[in-house]
Amino acid sequence: MKRIVLKFGGTSVGSITKIQNVAKIIKKRHDDENEIIVVVSAMSGTTNDLVKKSQLISSNFDKKELDVLLSSGEQISSSLLSAAIIELGIKARSWLNWQIPIITNDKHNSSQIINVQTKEILKFISNGGVAVIPGFQGISSENRTTTLGRGGSDLSAVVIAKFFQSNTCEIYTDVDGVLTTDPTIHKKAKKIDKISYEEMLEMASLGAKVMQPTSVQAAMLENIPVNVKSTFSDKTGTIITSENEINYNKVVTGITYSKKNAKISIVGIVDKPGLAADIFEPLGENHINIDMVIQNTSLDGKNANITFTIKKEDLKKTLNIIEKNKEKINYNKVTHDDKLSKVSIIGAGMIASPGVTYKMFRSLANEKINILAISTSEIKISVLVHDNMTQKAVKALHKTFQLD
Amino acid sequence: MKRIVLKFGGTSVGSITKIQNVAKIIKKRHDDENEIIVVVSAMSGTTNDLVKKSQLISSNFDKKELDVLLSSGEQISSSLLSAAIIELGIKARSWLNWQIPIITNDKHNSSQIINVQTKEILKFISNGGVAVIPGFQGISSENRTTTLGRGGSDLSAVVIAKFFQSNTCEIYTDVDGVLTTDPTIHKKAKKIDKISYEEMLEMASLGAKVMQPTSVQAAMLENIPVNVKSTFSDKTGTIITSENEINYNKVVTGITYSKKNAKISIVGIVDKPGLAADIFEPLGENHINIDMVIQNTSLDGKNANITFTIKKEDLKKTLNIIEKNKEKINYNKVTHDDKLSKVSIIGAGMIASPGVTYKMFRSLANEKINILAISTSEIKISVLVHDNMTQKAVKALHKTFQLD
Repeated sequence: MKRIVLKFGGTSVGSITKIQNVAKIIKKRHDDENEIIVVVSAMSGTTNDLVKKSQLISSNFDKKELDVLLSSGEQISSSLLSAAIIELGIKARSWLNWQIPIITNDKHNSSQIINVQTKEILKFISNGGVAVIPGFQGISSENRTTTLGRGGSDLSAVVIAKFFQSNTCEIYTDVDGVLTTDPTIHKKAKKIDKISYEEMLEMASLGAKVMQPTSVQAAMLENIPVNVKSTFSDKTGTIITSENEINYNKVVTGITYSKKNAKISIVGIVDKPGLAADIFEPLGENHINIDMVIQNTSLDGKNANITFTIKKEDLKKTLNIIEKNKEKINYNKVTHDDKLSKVSIIGAGMIASPGVTYKMFRSLANEKINILAISTSEIKISVLVHDNMTQKAVKALHKTFQLD
Repeated sequence: MKRIVLKFGGTSVGSITKIQNVAKIIKKRHDDENEIIVVVSAMSGTTNDLVKKSQLISSNFDKKELDVLLSSGEQISSSLLSAAIIELGIKARSWLNWQIPIITNDKHNSSQIINVQTKEILKFISNGGVAVIPGFQGISSENRTTTLGRGGSDLSAVVIAKFFQSNTCEIYTDVDGVLTTDPTIHKKAKKIDKISYEEMLEMASLGAKVMQPTSVQAAMLENIPVNVKSTFSDKTGTIITSENEINYNKVVTGITYSKKNAKISIVGIVDKPGLAADIFEPLGENHINIDMVIQNTSLDGKNANITFTIKKEDLKKTLNIIEKNKEKINYNKVTHDDKLSKVSIIGAGMIASPGVTYKMFRSLANEKINILAISTSEIKISVLVHDNMTQKAVKALHKTFQLD
């Protein structure tokens, strides 16, 4: 008897027919003598629709009420799915956030799960029942509904797998698994069979949308193997697991990109100690995330330049803050560019393979793609390129690192 | 400082603009130094949409899961309305079924409220907060979500007014109040200023849709004055109160009709003691409600007839049951008619006014309307007429009893 957590995303339960299909998958798994806990997202479109309604009422919609509003989406899909499972002759029921309960802290709209009571559900599933839990939500110690933020259902699934000491956490979604790159910009994208938590964390942080970074992090911390697979096919999917479970036969595991980057250059700064702090402190205070930084200290102490990248959406706010601090920073002028893309290669195999950086640059140079900034970690290299070069860059790197 | 319960129906919160309008009404009432508890229905259309989804999954959708599903509708409207009130600068929050809690029995889909915890909400409203409670729902002693059945939000409002010892329960809806008859079939329908619980109970049972009979009954039992009024105008509405609060200057208060009636006649029955029981017992066991009954006992003991009326939707089932019991009942033949309408005049004033029945029959006879059956109580007279005579009958009676 295995105890498994199955999580179904919004597109997997996007219509009544799809919900019935999911019920059939669950029945099949149940017939194999498994104790089953299901975590379910809201039907695709529901959450966006509720968010739209809230925005019509207020651009500053009360955070606690927003959680009450949004949590209804998973409540609906949980009850529909439970009834669809019952319809197939299997005992099932929905367990709502307050019934379990799933206790979170009180950071509304982006809560963390602190505890999950397991006793009643364990009794129910050990008697052959399927427990259906709405993902994305919990309750605070003040008995208010909380939500975990976008993509929170994956996080719910991983944390529930932890508290129920489940053998495996399976994320059913609308793609075959984690792919080597985005198939919408490169047809040769291939499914990755196994990927380490660390690599997956980089992939997710750098643009792969299949799982949110927080969920990957939670799985890594608890060492819970996650299997990302398709609801619509029988393929095996991708196993996300610890590095020592994987034989690396390729240097690079995957290639990601994100288009929503902007670059700001502050030019002609009078150099002095604490210069970077003067620039980045007020940005940090205003919750602006700095990504890459390039600092050219000057020889004459008068003409230092600093270039850094931020999210495109933060551009206006950032420029305002820099303008306000003009005297303090003491610079000549500011330039910016918001048509930039960050392309990254990720692979735990590159630790043991010198020359990856060179190979990457050469590959891009061959395609006449200009590199505007670079940042590296042990298992990834990111470069900033012009927006319209994204696809060309991904394709070139996909070939260079033998992922085609 | 008055403590008031305000209930807003589905059409009153049918869009974001309407929800914002309701928030303004609440603000106005709050500015008058009232302690306010709001009970809210699901946005119009939501519940129907959820029911449709459930029917696509199963014609026998699990009752407990149906309650989880349907209760989401009021959860959504409660959070939207709370945020809209907050947006106007007033403290407000939604209080969900499990947060209060509202305890019901465990008859899923048609529960009765047993208890409402008031302590926390009393504290909140006495500090100037507006409590917004989703109508129609509660939780069972087993911690499962329950619902009160269609129209249950009115019932929630009345019961909440009772537990909170509120001075008044105001039902905001999409009409000006309780009308003398249905304005869609008679333009001269007028708003009734005051009506007794008993009259309202008859009105609601006999076809007036403004309030469900169970809600009126609850208000009557607890002697809670109910004010039915329009969300979309400033008019005073209709007060539903005890009889001794009302000066009856008219014999008849209102006229209702319902079209969904069928008549069955069992002809040529061999008369014997217990005959009626033989006919009605199996119908009762199959939950078929018998409305009017006319029994002609025969002189020779061989040719008794029984005619009775039922809901149109029960016709087929009823005919089958009678056919099955043919030998036991021992009859000659069965005839039926399902194109019938029940038209009723209601008025506590008729107790003190002899001749009302005669006046009613004369009025219908003048219009050449055939009466097929009659039933009376102290404050109402109902007649069965052919379907296509409904409007003519209502108009004639409206005039005869000076309601025009």
